[in-house]
Amino acid sequence: MPTLLLSKDVIRGLLNIADVIKVVEDAFKLFDQGRASMPPKAYLAVEQGDFRAMPASIPGAAGMKWVNSHPQNPSRGLPTVMAILVYNDPETGYPLAVMDATDITAYRTAATSAIASKYLARPDSHVLGIIGAGHQAYIHILAHAEVFDLKLIKVFDHSMSTCERLICSLPDYPVEKASLEDTANADIICTLTPSREPILKKEWITPGTHINAVGADAAGKEELDPSILKDSIVVVDDLRQASAAGEINVPVTQKLFTVDEVYATLGELIAGKKQGRTDSNVTSIFDSTGIAIEDIATAKLIYQKAKHAGRGMSIELI
Amino acid sequence: MPTLLLSKDVIRGLLNIADVIKVVEDAFKLFDQGRASMPPKAYLAVEQGDFRAMPASIPGAAGMKWVNSHPQNPSRGLPTVMAILVYNDPETGYPLAVMDATDITAYRTAATSAIASKYLARPDSHVLGIIGAGHQAYIHILAHAEVFDLKLIKVFDHSMSTCERLICSLPDYPVEKASLEDTANADIICTLTPSREPILKKEWITPGTHINAVGADAAGKEELDPSILKDSIVVVDDLRQASAAGEINVPVTQKLFTVDEVYATLGELIAGKKQGRTDSNVTSIFDSTGIAIEDIATAKLIYQKAKHAGRGMSIELI
Repeated sequence: MPTLLLSKDVIRGLLNIADVIKVVEDAFKLFDQGRASMPPKAYLAVEQGDFRAMPASIPGAAGMKWVNSHPQNPSRGLPTVMAILVYNDPETGYPLAVMDATDITAYRTAATSAIASKYLARPDSHVLGIIGAGHQAYIHILAHAEVFDLKLIKVFDHSMSTCERLICSLPDYPVEKASLEDTANADIICTLTPSREPILKKEWITPGTHINAVGADAAGKEELDPSILKDSIVVVDDLRQASAAGEINVPVTQKLFTVDEVYATLGELIAGKKQGRTDSNVTSIFDSTGIAIEDIATAKLIYQKAKHAGRGMSIELI
Repeated sequence: MPTLLLSKDVIRGLLNIADVIKVVEDAFKLFDQGRASMPPKAYLAVEQGDFRAMPASIPGAAGMKWVNSHPQNPSRGLPTVMAILVYNDPETGYPLAVMDATDITAYRTAATSAIASKYLARPDSHVLGIIGAGHQAYIHILAHAEVFDLKLIKVFDHSMSTCERLICSLPDYPVEKASLEDTANADIICTLTPSREPILKKEWITPGTHINAVGADAAGKEELDPSILKDSIVVVDDLRQASAAGEINVPVTQKLFTVDEVYATLGELIAGKKQGRTDSNVTSIFDSTGIAIEDIATAKLIYQKAKHAGRGMSIELI
């Protein structure tokens, strides 16, 4: 029985953000219902960076994403983060596919932010603020444009050229560069930076704003002034991961915020166990750490599309 | 930069037990010296079986083995256990290779047993007893023949045909089928069964025997009468894994044996921190659970051999 190899090029041709939003939303619901599983990530630290093994299963699919983070890679002409996903038949364990998961990671992260915005931002949101114009920014804009009627997209980045590259890549969208403070004046803000200290100040935020805090993905990282958390509805993808490595990790360690103050998980909102936004004047925050069920749901979608379209290369690997 | 795909056929052509014994012994020494690392395995349970992610690094190599166990697979014509290993450059995280790791698992397990026998069995051992003639038996015999001058190899299996198939596959070795009790009358015994209750009785064991207890690899599994442990030198590959899922797990749970009674790790013997056998009349036991540094050491060897020989298929995966 062959294993299907799905390279970056093939994956790019099959990824579609609208489809990813749909399957990731379903996966969060399954996870909340106890029908998806996800053991804790295994971390391997090496001198120049680290690796994480992220296994998960949903009905009909099991697999594991193996992803590195090597911050000095750009100086060598390599991406900081690269990922491979092994996709298995849960019935037999057979490795049905091995795929590049770098773009899967970007798409599922942006899809999850857009899903959180759907439940937490005001339905009439039309101004999107993007802080950090790196590789996550492009797909976050596409994902939000699927869910909202965006009239204006403000983008801030310390690097003018990064900002301009993003704007050039989206000629059909109303994207403008802005100051950090002006970018924070938006209906929905996405923070997409590797910051290790708060960059978003409380006085810049209009009550009623929804913030997707995406950048913090390791202990010691944070992007928001902790005082924003105190007056907001805080929703997480996974409580264990968020308190260890998400936006809330530093405030929790510093006792500025407690896990008991987390309002809900995204799965609880999607499953209807907790209500999303009910008050248009409350600030809401989604703390996105990125969880393995997002990857396996997207991998299942891609595998099925590839089989249907006859894409990828079949080899007798095992 | 391409990723090298190494299929089962290619791997089989490159594996050589003498080389694997050498690199695995080195890896245990590095691990003992704190120069290799191995976070706890991540377990993913699904309805029909389970998966384990086993990450590890040694100097110059990092990677992760993703291995399933689906006990009902043989009835579907598939192996119970299949494994894929992603092999990375630790400097950049780049996935240099994706390889079948099913045979790597079998070779590194047998190599580790032979290394344990080298340190723990009497140097003049010439009778090997193999209990369980399944897929591990063949390579355990080859591995021990590298280290000892074997005059007689006794094999026991409940299935006569499994036993005969093994004997036919080794025409150049003095292999004979024997009763369970007679097989236990050997200088070195390897227990290679999936047993969940003791099959090896104390009264069968001659003091001075060395036993490699390999079969127990999950909570609830055991092969030896726990009273054998009490009067023996007990060595483990990794104390954490052994007490959770190795031969000692059931006796530890039942308070018939404590982890304090473990004499040493295999790494400590290899590094010379603890002496191996000093008394020819003491029974010794190596509790093998199989650890990720054995896999990464073997994968590094295979990757280097494949590059040198120009084997495998290069593809632009990521």
